[in-house]
This record gives sequence, C-alpha cells and structure tokens, in this order.
Amino acid sequence: MKIIPIREGLSLKRSIDQGTSMERASVERILEDVRSNGDEAVRRYTKEHDKIEVTQTLVTPEETEQAYQTVDEDTLVIIREAIENIRDFHQRQVEQSWMTTKEDGTILGQKVTALDAVGVYVPGGRAAYPSSILMNVIPAQVAGVKRIVMTSPPQKNGSLDDIVLVTASELGIKEIYKIGGAQAIGALAYGTETIEAVDKIVGPGNIYVALAKQQVFGTVAIDMIAGPSEVAVLADDTANARFIAADLLSQAEHDPLSSAVLVTDNEKLAKEVSKEVTVQLETLPKQEIAEASINDHGAIYIAETFEKAIDAVNELAAEHLELHVKAPWDVLPKIRHAGAIFLGEYSSEPIGDYFAGPNHVLPTNGTARFSSPLSVQDFTKKSSIISYSKQAVQQHGKKISAFARLENLEAHARAVELRLEDDHS
Amino acid sequence: MKIIPIREGLSLKRSIDQGTSMERASVERILEDVRSNGDEAVRRYTKEHDKIEVTQTLVTPEETEQAYQTVDEDTLVIIREAIENIRDFHQRQVEQSWMTTKEDGTILGQKVTALDAVGVYVPGGRAAYPSSILMNVIPAQVAGVKRIVMTSPPQKNGSLDDIVLVTASELGIKEIYKIGGAQAIGALAYGTETIEAVDKIVGPGNIYVALAKQQVFGTVAIDMIAGPSEVAVLADDTANARFIAADLLSQAEHDPLSSAVLVTDNEKLAKEVSKEVTVQLETLPKQEIAEASINDHGAIYIAETFEKAIDAVNELAAEHLELHVKAPWDVLPKIRHAGAIFLGEYSSEPIGDYFAGPNHVLPTNGTARFSSPLSVQDFTKKSSIISYSKQAVQQHGKKISAFARLENLEAHARAVELRLEDDHS
Repeated sequence: MKIIPIREGLSLKRSIDQGTSMERASVERILEDVRSNGDEAVRRYTKEHDKIEVTQTLVTPEETEQAYQTVDEDTLVIIREAIENIRDFHQRQVEQSWMTTKEDGTILGQKVTALDAVGVYVPGGRAAYPSSILMNVIPAQVAGVKRIVMTSPPQKNGSLDDIVLVTASELGIKEIYKIGGAQAIGALAYGTETIEAVDKIVGPGNIYVALAKQQVFGTVAIDMIAGPSEVAVLADDTANARFIAADLLSQAEHDPLSSAVLVTDNEKLAKEVSKEVTVQLETLPKQEIAEASINDHGAIYIAETFEKAIDAVNELAAEHLELHVKAPWDVLPKIRHAGAIFLGEYSSEPIGDYFAGPNHVLPTNGTARFSSPLSVQDFTKKSSIISYSKQAVQQHGKKISAFARLENLEAHARAVELRLEDDHS
Repeated sequence: MKIIPIREGLSLKRSIDQGTSMERASVERILEDVRSNGDEAVRRYTKEHDKIEVTQTLVTPEETEQAYQTVDEDTLVIIREAIENIRDFHQRQVEQSWMTTKEDGTILGQKVTALDAVGVYVPGGRAAYPSSILMNVIPAQVAGVKRIVMTSPPQKNGSLDDIVLVTASELGIKEIYKIGGAQAIGALAYGTETIEAVDKIVGPGNIYVALAKQQVFGTVAIDMIAGPSEVAVLADDTANARFIAADLLSQAEHDPLSSAVLVTDNEKLAKEVSKEVTVQLETLPKQEIAEASINDHGAIYIAETFEKAIDAVNELAAEHLELHVKAPWDVLPKIRHAGAIFLGEYSSEPIGDYFAGPNHVLPTNGTARFSSPLSVQDFTKKSSIISYSKQAVQQHGKKISAFARLENLEAHARAVELRLEDDHS
C-alpha cells in the first residue's frame, strides 16, 4: 500500500457514476412508458431486459415455501438474531409526537406520522444481499409504515433468489413483485393496474435503478444515491497491524472503486500494515477486486501529530471510521464527520454490516458532513401543530398583523384582525 | 369561488417550474465559472445581473448601524418576540446523542453532531421577508451550527434592505455577503478566495437560485425546492364563513399560483364562503394577485359526508391545513398528511407565518406525504456508534462470519475471525 505524508492532501471522493446520456435517455423513456402503459410496459421491459416472460409478477406463497427448503436451519437462526438486533436498535430511534401548552390556551407541537407506503428495491443476482433487505425494511416497519412492497428482478427460472424470499418472509413482507430495473422504479412511483404507487423508494441498484430513482424524485421520496463503500482507520502506536489490514481488505473486496485508508502518526505501524495487506491479499478469493481497490483508492497517510490525524479523518468524512487507538472514547468527541464510528480494535467494520444493529446504509463520498445513516426517521414525517385560543389571539393579534404589514401582506393582517373584532361563538 | 362536488376529483398539485433549457444552461455556466474563477466571476455576474459594482461584498458594521436608524422601536419589539417564540419552539426539537450498553461490553448508539457551516440565501427586493430569515437561521443556531453565512443580492444603492440587515443583526449573524443569484449559490457551494464553502444551503430564491441549488446538490446539502404556497380548510357546519374567506385570501395574496381550497360537507357554508371571498376581495391591495389565485387554483369542494371530507384533505396533503370544526382535536388523529395543522377557528394561518414559533418552511405540492417542516434536525446529522468488546466478539463472532460467507464476502468473515484467534493485548 502507498504510504503518503498527509500534507500532500487527501480525499476519499470519487466521481459518482451519473450514467451516459444514452443511459439517462433510456431510463427517461422507460419511466414515461410505464407511466402511460402500466403493467403492459413493465412486462415488455422485463421480457426485453431480464429475458423472461413473467405472467404473474406477484410472488406466491408456494414460491416462498419452496425457497425455505434450500436454506439451512443455522442460517435461519443467524438471520433471526440479526433481525432482533437490528429491530432493537431502530426501536430506540422512534420519535414521539409532542406538544407544549401555555395557560392562555395556546398549544404548539409536532405530530409524527409514518409514511403510508414504501417500496424497497432489491437488486438481482449476485448483488442480492439479505442484509440489505433487513437494513431497508426494518426501519420502515419500526416507523409504522403499513404497506411495504418489495421488487426484485426475476432470475432465469422465473422466480427470485431463495435467500431473498426467505429473508422477506422472515420480516413478514408479503407484497413482492418480480420486476426490476427502471421499470420497477416507474411502477413504484406512478403505480400500475396491479401495483399501487408508494410514497418513498429505498434500496440499492445498478446505474439504471439509480438514474430512475433520481428522475422520480419529487413525485416520491428516495433514499440517498450511494457511492462506492469506504473505510478510514485512525490508529496510534497501540494498534494491531493484522487487524487493521484485515479490515481494510474487507472494505476493498466490495468493489474496485471501494476506498480503504489508514491515517496514523506512527510510521512503524504504517509499514507493518502495508506489509500485512500484501500478505493477507494473497489468499483472498476476491483478490483481484481487493487489489484494484487498494492500488487505486487505498492509502496510508502519515500525520505529523495525532491531532493532525484526527483533523484528517474529519476531512475525509468516511462512511465507516474505525478508531484503533488506546482510548477510543477520548477520541470520539473530536470526530465530527463519519457515517458509523467503530470504537476499539475488536469493533471490526463487518460487525456493523449485518449483526450489531445499527443501519449499514450510510452516507458515502464525504456526504457524512451533512447526511445520516438510514433510520426510522426516514420513514416518518412531521406536521406542525398550532392551536391558538381566542384569548391568545386577543393578546398577540395586533403584533401578528403588524408583522404581516411589515411584509406587505395586508390580507394576512386582516385575517388576524377579523378574529379581534368578530365575536363568533 | 367555484363550488365542486368532491367526487369529480381534486388536487393541489401544480407543475413546478423547472426553468427553460436556456435558464438551466445559463445556471450551469455560472456555477462552473464561479467554481473556476472564484471572486472575480462572482463580481462579474453581480455587475452583469444586479447592475452594480460591489468592491467589498462583506457587509460592514456601519451598514448595519445605518439600517437600525430606519427601523422603529415597535417593529424591533415584535421581531424580538417572534425570535423568542421561534427559538423556544425549535429548542424542543433538539435531539440528544444516545447509547445503549450490554453487560458483555457492547455499546451501541447514535452521536448527533451539528453541521459545520450553513449558508442562508435571502432574496432581494420585494421578496425579502424578515420572517424567512428567522425561520431559516434560528433552527441552524439551535442545532449548534458554528458558522452561519447569509447572502443576498445588493440593491441599487450597493447595500441590502434595512430590515434584512436589522433582522440578521438581531440574530447575531455577522458574515453577510452582498451577492445573489446563481453566483451566490456557487460561491457557497464551492467556496471562493474570500468566502469559505458551506455544507448546506437553505432559503428561498428565484428560478435561477432554485436551479443552482438543484445543481450543487450532492456537493452540499440543500433544503427542499418549495412550490407555490397552499392552504386547505376543513370545515363543518359550526364554521365561521368570514374567518375562512379571510384565511383563503391570505394565502391567495402570495402569488397567482398559490392555491386556497375549502373542503366541507355543508353546502350552506360553501355558498357563504364563496360570497364572503368576493366581498373581502374587493378591498384587498393585492386584489389582482389574489383573484387570479382564487380563480385558477381555488375551489370549494363539497363532500357527501364529513369522513369523505377528511379523506380529501389527506389526499391533498396541503402545506397548511386549518380545521374549522367543532372538535378539532377529535379530527387531528385522522389527519395523516399536512405540513402544518391549525386547530380551531382562532388559529388563523398567518399566526404560524411569523409569530407562534413553528417553522413556516413547509412541504408543498403534496410532498407533505413524505416531507416535514424545516427543523433543527435539518442542521444536524448522526453517526452510528459501535463498540464491541473482546468478549462480545468471542460470543458472536462465528455467527457474524457465517453471515458474511452467506453474502460471499470472505474478507469480511476473516476480519472477524482474526479477532477470535489473535490474542492481542
């Protein structure tokens, strides 16, 4: 791994794939088509892109039952424990509606309401991660969303991946459509004869899915468009080089565009980690991917002081940040930007990917400066509550109408003043 | 006003101005120019668009002092009381960082951190509303944002509107730049020699500002792109027609595109309100605007039952919803979608615009289905906290690596297993 003095500048940012203009135009055409022609268009694109004619897009209970035959008991036990952990964590995010009252009769507050309907996109084939289903569905369920729909492109055999069906069933999701790509996003956003439109679409997908989500944004809400995955490790001289190398590689195996970096003030550690990465790379099944990631987007940055190393990880604003330092809780308050923070050398990043409980859908590409992990809040919205009594209006009405006139809004002023004169009872 | 049976369908949605392709291209060019040429480009566009050469863009204390001379004491008192009310309401939205611990040494949680820097755009000329400054700045201040920057286009005299300067000063905002339009958004997003880049840009603006915000989205966060304002009134036979008409008109005076609708199950009330609107319109200073809004986007919908009237206001998902009914608190739980809900006939919508405390930046155009009022949360972000002890990894490590292998991620599995074998201390 490259070892670079930090003063030469650093960044995790990679250019986000915006698609070619042909891809964008193609997605626009598909969405328009689905909006106008509904199910017929969805079937047509499924035939064209997925090379399969699906007559019944809704998954049947029999398909799910069959899928269970292929999943062993141990896997089920682990999935169930993960569900429990993830649900427990997200339940702590639930917000309450609240109000405040004044003796003049004023009541102000905030009403929290779950979204009506949410669509979860699940990629097909090798990209179908059960953990992704858990992380997108559970916060919506905890929020109280009544209708949660899943869509995923059909496999060659006309059904979905067994583990996808089993995971969905474990979560109690029953409305699953075997459709994928931009046509699925169109169906979720605009609705068809058989699929009712949703209010928000979440979940990862290929470039067509990402572009389709961007284009329907506004008609419905969407989650963030995720960039390639990242980890930054902040380490001092107490750190274990083998642990760090293994964690860097676990990020690098995702994608040649993934980025794994170490920031440290200790040159000896830097060299050890660099060596360990080479050693551990040799026996990795995804060696080629991980090697490309490490070479193109990996780095070990040497800071002159530990304080400068902390500044550097704040500048990086990484999706995942591991603190391999003697006293990680002393460092935590100084961390301003990171999607998820892993404290101590036993908190390996993969622990947060499936099992610990916090969401693995995290801000990438420096957006941790202003964005948060996916949460229950992303599946609720708020309404302000304003209740003024007659007494309160009488007390404050003149000030309110004066403010309205300051903004040159006479009808606003009059609406309030009418309450001062008119004695309706 | 048109009286329409509800079964004929209803919608508040109007097409959102996406700009012409020429406008979009022009904004793209300006942003690129500011990104490359910084202050020089900003000055050039200010000269070109605002017809004024500003050598010093930062507002001086002397300018603010002068502005105070023109604002009377009564106005100051009202602005200060509004600030107090708005601050009080938003302080109740502050979220705490939290954690949960297990006896095996696991600590999980969520760290809440304020954004580092926020830019507030304030439109120039007649569109400069002091209330808009309050509603955008105060939640950021309450969130704990350290650097809050304001930008606003210079007037012909080379300075800003007096009330803008005074309002900013009352809030303690000191970094104010006399620049506007797409060039201001570019400066805030990318930074220039004299203006440091921010993390989020909020505040209303004309079509150039809106397009520029959309284009820099991703580099920085932005607030929603607001559509024209709306009010829906839900009323039963106990309602006061004069109050309702006044409130409909206070929305209509904003913009010919504003939408004001009444939904009721009572035909007598419908007719009375229609008549009252005509009467009150006659003496309004902004009669022309209000009349266009009422004619083109106003309606009185008659529902067969009160339950159907409630369904209708949920379908509308209005920015503002007034409940002019006998028992508004009985209706509240049935309201699923609305930006702000005003309960009872004394809670006139203008009360929420400046004074009561809740934010007036609200979701428009049906987006209340999935969006919330601007809040303190919009100026914070969260980081997940994951701390696993050696004991916790020993207990759960095998399950975690099994899950990783289920997803075909061997390096993930090994990173965890390394902690099981390696006895680093």
